[in-house]
Amino acid sequence: MEKNVREEENEPGQIVNPWEVSGKDGGKIDYDKLIDKFGCQRLDQTLIRRVERLTSRPPHVFLRRGVFFAHRDFNEILDAYERGEKFYLYTGRGPSSEALHLGHLVPFMFTKYLQDAFKVPLVIQLTDDEKCMWKNLSVEESQRLARENAKDIIACGFDITKTFIFSDFDYVGGAFYKNMVRVAKCVTFNKVVGIFGFTAEDHIGKISFPPVQAVPSFPSSFPHLFSGKDDLRCLIPCAIDQDPYFRMTRDVAPRIGYQKPSLIESSFFPALQGETGKMSASDPNSAIYVTDSAKDIKNKINKYAFSGGQDSIENHRKYGANLEVDIPIKYLGFFLEDDDELEHIRKEYATGRMLTGEVKKRLIEVLTELVERHRRARAAVTDEMVDAFMAVRPLPGMFD
Amino acid sequence: MEKNVREEENEPGQIVNPWEVSGKDGGKIDYDKLIDKFGCQRLDQTLIRRVERLTSRPPHVFLRRGVFFAHRDFNEILDAYERGEKFYLYTGRGPSSEALHLGHLVPFMFTKYLQDAFKVPLVIQLTDDEKCMWKNLSVEESQRLARENAKDIIACGFDITKTFIFSDFDYVGGAFYKNMVRVAKCVTFNKVVGIFGFTAEDHIGKISFPPVQAVPSFPSSFPHLFSGKDDLRCLIPCAIDQDPYFRMTRDVAPRIGYQKPSLIESSFFPALQGETGKMSASDPNSAIYVTDSAKDIKNKINKYAFSGGQDSIENHRKYGANLEVDIPIKYLGFFLEDDDELEHIRKEYATGRMLTGEVKKRLIEVLTELVERHRRARAAVTDEMVDAFMAVRPLPGMFD
Repeated sequence: MEKNVREEENEPGQIVNPWEVSGKDGGKIDYDKLIDKFGCQRLDQTLIRRVERLTSRPPHVFLRRGVFFAHRDFNEILDAYERGEKFYLYTGRGPSSEALHLGHLVPFMFTKYLQDAFKVPLVIQLTDDEKCMWKNLSVEESQRLARENAKDIIACGFDITKTFIFSDFDYVGGAFYKNMVRVAKCVTFNKVVGIFGFTAEDHIGKISFPPVQAVPSFPSSFPHLFSGKDDLRCLIPCAIDQDPYFRMTRDVAPRIGYQKPSLIESSFFPALQGETGKMSASDPNSAIYVTDSAKDIKNKINKYAFSGGQDSIENHRKYGANLEVDIPIKYLGFFLEDDDELEHIRKEYATGRMLTGEVKKRLIEVLTELVERHRRARAAVTDEMVDAFMAVRPLPGMFD
Repeated sequence: MEKNVREEENEPGQIVNPWEVSGKDGGKIDYDKLIDKFGCQRLDQTLIRRVERLTSRPPHVFLRRGVFFAHRDFNEILDAYERGEKFYLYTGRGPSSEALHLGHLVPFMFTKYLQDAFKVPLVIQLTDDEKCMWKNLSVEESQRLARENAKDIIACGFDITKTFIFSDFDYVGGAFYKNMVRVAKCVTFNKVVGIFGFTAEDHIGKISFPPVQAVPSFPSSFPHLFSGKDDLRCLIPCAIDQDPYFRMTRDVAPRIGYQKPSLIESSFFPALQGETGKMSASDPNSAIYVTDSAKDIKNKINKYAFSGGQDSIENHRKYGANLEVDIPIKYLGFFLEDDDELEHIRKEYATGRMLTGEVKKRLIEVLTELVERHRRARAAVTDEMVDAFMAVRPLPGMFD
């Protein structure tokens, strides 16, 4: 899937799709342009204040700081919620690697916040079929990775009485498959070429896949959860590279008598080397993994985290750091919860009073604690708990 | 699907694929050319005698008279059977219409003979998903038709201890879906364009479908039947228009570690109006339906069955009938079991001693009895029996 993504003719622009993320000429992603191109809406302060009011709790760091920055009809979800109507959350993961990195945790940490704040059920799709087809993994290996990833997801603290995790290889069938067929009937090959950049040389497994990711947007795909609740709205928290799937889904939904899902979309967690796209699973030094030791984290941050500081202490004290390109500051923006402390660090660093080494030291503390907490939580996830989260069952307390 | 089937450039040749059957310039199907084009083998007398010897029973009328006329590796099935190895049968139906016509019964009558003669299990696929996608039926209507058709199939007398009938909408999932993904990974869009004549304007449901029809060829798609029997061979009795699916399947099978299925393929049951293709569901007067009354049958045969007799009794007595184009003789060839009587009628008719009306009279008797027997059998098929045949269950007596 490297080369078959449509760009504008003769003008290499930025590419953002489920399989490739890169800015124009290898530069930073221009999120404003992306919003325009995709046709989604900016998540503004009015909406964030509305979330705060409706949930009676402070908005999540990822909302306050613009990590989740775009949406589609999120306001309609809030309108309905305000009227007393509930909704459900749908997110997912393609289980292509054993260990998750911090970027993988972002949508799950945010989804947990949404689940807690709105007290709503959640379905999490593990697209082991997708990874089997795109990464040429065996069915068995894809399923093994799905279970391993499920442990990391469960470690994020989801409420088992409100959460159904499923792997496609386990769950596709029945009402879910019927919805796949309903969606597939509405989408031509030309259409998926336009949306996903497939080519005629791609195998038909890839071409068949978009409906699989589309149909968890429809409550009728989960009769054990939402029987008789065909009008329940769906909110999808995800990174914006998944938007093409849901543009397609939203296009098809009314034609088959279903509600369009709403989306709330995040920017990408930057690589240690700088903010020019997503982190790469093929370069372990481009990311902090949840399996990294304290020593790994320290080494990676000190060695690879791109600094916006000046090239000498003298110059740094004089000119200060360029926060726009500084990775330690970006990472702290994701994971340092204390707004006052972050603001203090930003100011001190920008004016040159604080050095890169000091900022990195604080980041190492924050990430070591985060990763250590995740590791402890994951170690406590048993195979029985995975089975329990993945059991096809009702969720009796899902709206409590 | 009318227009997107590849023909030879500028030379309208015969078209045979799962959705269209027509001879060159609207003429008769040239089955010899079809065997060459598809690359299958002719089912010769040596093979038929071998079937007779191995099963210790006379070969079925459809074998003796060349209705099943082509095969792929059927000899290997017989080799294995002779060594004491069993196999399983796989056939199916796309449930697009309420009532079956006689042509629809042909593969099922033959499959029943194979099941009885070789004492082997049988899986019957009802492709309600296919018909939902191609005929633009709703999911529910396709499923209803599948159950109605299942009753007609059961009425053919299949052994419930050896037969599993499934609808795709009910059964796709689990091991079956995993095999669909394994197959889909091996087939490009260009490949299905070449095999099936799809175009870029076709919806992705069509493009996704070939693996669904492919995977019942693999025993691992039925863990409740063939667990631990991954090497069990599969024999597919079908009309030759289904060959494209199984060319694809046989191409893929070794690449995913599976055995190629064998095939035994029939010619098409001709329309009443003459032997230029299959019967048309859109013209009720082109076929005898299993729901037709004795009066319907009499009327249709007398009014529409194309006669090879001469235009006057005088000429007929003088020149005799042209059996090559005579539909009553063709139909008797399918359904009049007595070889001696058929031979007698052919001779008398060809020499003009017997008139078209007399041949038609005998055909009406034969078909009325056949249809009446089928109707009685179908009336005895209860919903509980359908449920029982379609239950996902082991078949403990499947090799007895």
